[in-house]
Amino acid sequence: MNLNKVLQAGLADVDAQLISIVDSDVEVLQDASEHILTSGGKRIRPQMALLAYLAAGGENLSEVVPVAAAVEMVHTATLVHDDINDHSLTRRGKATIHSVWGRTFALLTGDYLFAKVYELMAPYGAEYNVIMANACIRLVEGETLQAATAKAGNMTRDTYKRIIALKTASLFEASARMGALLAETDEEVVEALADYAYNLGLTFQIVDDILDIVGDPEELGKPVGADLAQQRGVMMAQNGMQFDGGAATAVAEAIVAEEMDPITQMMSRLRESGAVEVARLQAEEMGRRARAALEDVPPSPARAELYRLVDLVLERHK
Amino acid sequence: MNLNKVLQAGLADVDAQLISIVDSDVEVLQDASEHILTSGGKRIRPQMALLAYLAAGGENLSEVVPVAAAVEMVHTATLVHDDINDHSLTRRGKATIHSVWGRTFALLTGDYLFAKVYELMAPYGAEYNVIMANACIRLVEGETLQAATAKAGNMTRDTYKRIIALKTASLFEASARMGALLAETDEEVVEALADYAYNLGLTFQIVDDILDIVGDPEELGKPVGADLAQQRGVMMAQNGMQFDGGAATAVAEAIVAEEMDPITQMMSRLRESGAVEVARLQAEEMGRRARAALEDVPPSPARAELYRLVDLVLERHK
Repeated sequence: MNLNKVLQAGLADVDAQLISIVDSDVEVLQDASEHILTSGGKRIRPQMALLAYLAAGGENLSEVVPVAAAVEMVHTATLVHDDINDHSLTRRGKATIHSVWGRTFALLTGDYLFAKVYELMAPYGAEYNVIMANACIRLVEGETLQAATAKAGNMTRDTYKRIIALKTASLFEASARMGALLAETDEEVVEALADYAYNLGLTFQIVDDILDIVGDPEELGKPVGADLAQQRGVMMAQNGMQFDGGAATAVAEAIVAEEMDPITQMMSRLRESGAVEVARLQAEEMGRRARAALEDVPPSPARAELYRLVDLVLERHK
Repeated sequence: MNLNKVLQAGLADVDAQLISIVDSDVEVLQDASEHILTSGGKRIRPQMALLAYLAAGGENLSEVVPVAAAVEMVHTATLVHDDINDHSLTRRGKATIHSVWGRTFALLTGDYLFAKVYELMAPYGAEYNVIMANACIRLVEGETLQAATAKAGNMTRDTYKRIIALKTASLFEASARMGALLAETDEEVVEALADYAYNLGLTFQIVDDILDIVGDPEELGKPVGADLAQQRGVMMAQNGMQFDGGAATAVAEAIVAEEMDPITQMMSRLRESGAVEVARLQAEEMGRRARAALEDVPPSPARAELYRLVDLVLERHK
């Protein structure tokens, strides 16, 4: 079987595991969980786990499937809670859980999915659970730092980097690290794959922030400017502006003066400010670092796919 | 050292561990976590873990302290999320997290505490993590079933029992089970202590529901009628009424007709309905079952303390 077929079969197993594990007697938990789990996410975190396992020489993909399901479950749980905090009405082209079931059940569904992460991971023992626990803690810290910084209005380039490292890169890294460890490879290869995934996570998040400004809402399955409206895009903007020097400061001031409204006007200004282009350059730099990390991984079809994934992440438009 | 001193020292270690583990670089998470963790909860779940460990013959309490901290952390995480859903302003005599820091940070603090459970438990390996994962899942299922039943207005005595078993007794049971397992005792003793804690959990929750109707708000550190306002007390009321037969149905109908408002009037009616007395009898029955389970545990000062705890739970007024 070629790599692509192996990978697709693995991802299908991940999806099957995700659905089978949210089989609760409490109807609303099962319904709401299935609603979000079947809404067709990109499954990039499970891919990190599966491909790292394969690139590290693993031969029995079923070993890593529950871990791959668990990292997607963590991500899904945080999406459900994020959507409550952001008052988002659509996600992946479907209504958000809180817009269908209300806030109370959305909050509980997020908690439920998080408890299911725990169930998926429990059999793996201490080493893996420590990695996953740390990734979960960093993720929540990143989300909180983002909200606190947006509220205080004191975003800097360093804080932006810290936020995306905590909220996105940590879980990417943990996914690849656990996958590589399960294949029982050399420590050097584990570290290389973890380093790759960490940098791919940064790349992914910067591209995500760019798409919030310049993306096509129909392709994205969610409104553009949504993050901007939550003052997240400002992060990217100010980030870009700091790279860009003084020229963009005027735009930042205009945004602050108008108190983030109307969003469309801000988006247009952001597009014109050069911030997007600067962010783009950063994403490409992080992508280069991800590729460089792969030099310490023995050549294989899985490694080739990891290289290709960097391009896919950089080129994605949804 | 006598048991009481050992236990107090263990609980002090649990508190120290709870505070030391929420040491985040992200200020709001640390501040909000410390705010709730230092608000003086009853720590009954950690007591379950510590006393079960001692009653099962364990001799090195530090083995069980992180588990005892973890079960309290689960409970604390759910309190933070509950208070969001219930719009509660006070908890244990202090302002709730969402009333001080707002809903977004309260939601994230709950997630953070839940991730910290994971960190505390990770080193214990698969057997313990499976027990804890299941307890967390049941807890969320219980909270959800409660909210769904209140919303649908179709509470029955059986549903009430299922809810309190899921949302309260499961974590009590897991606390004692993990404590007993860590002491490496016979399976029979593990099961007896788990059975004890499960029934004590039911006792505890029924008494809690009674106190919401007849308690003194100053002693409780929260308003009475708060659960009733969330339609939870109705559960207890209807539960009592079913025991009580037709006589109380009129009260239930009056409550429904008035659509739960004003709360004070309902509380007064509930007190007069006999529902509280019936619930009281149920609590005593569950307390008897808890005591009976202890017959399979070898006599010890810790077992004597577990007996005493049943009385304390039944007699508590805050």
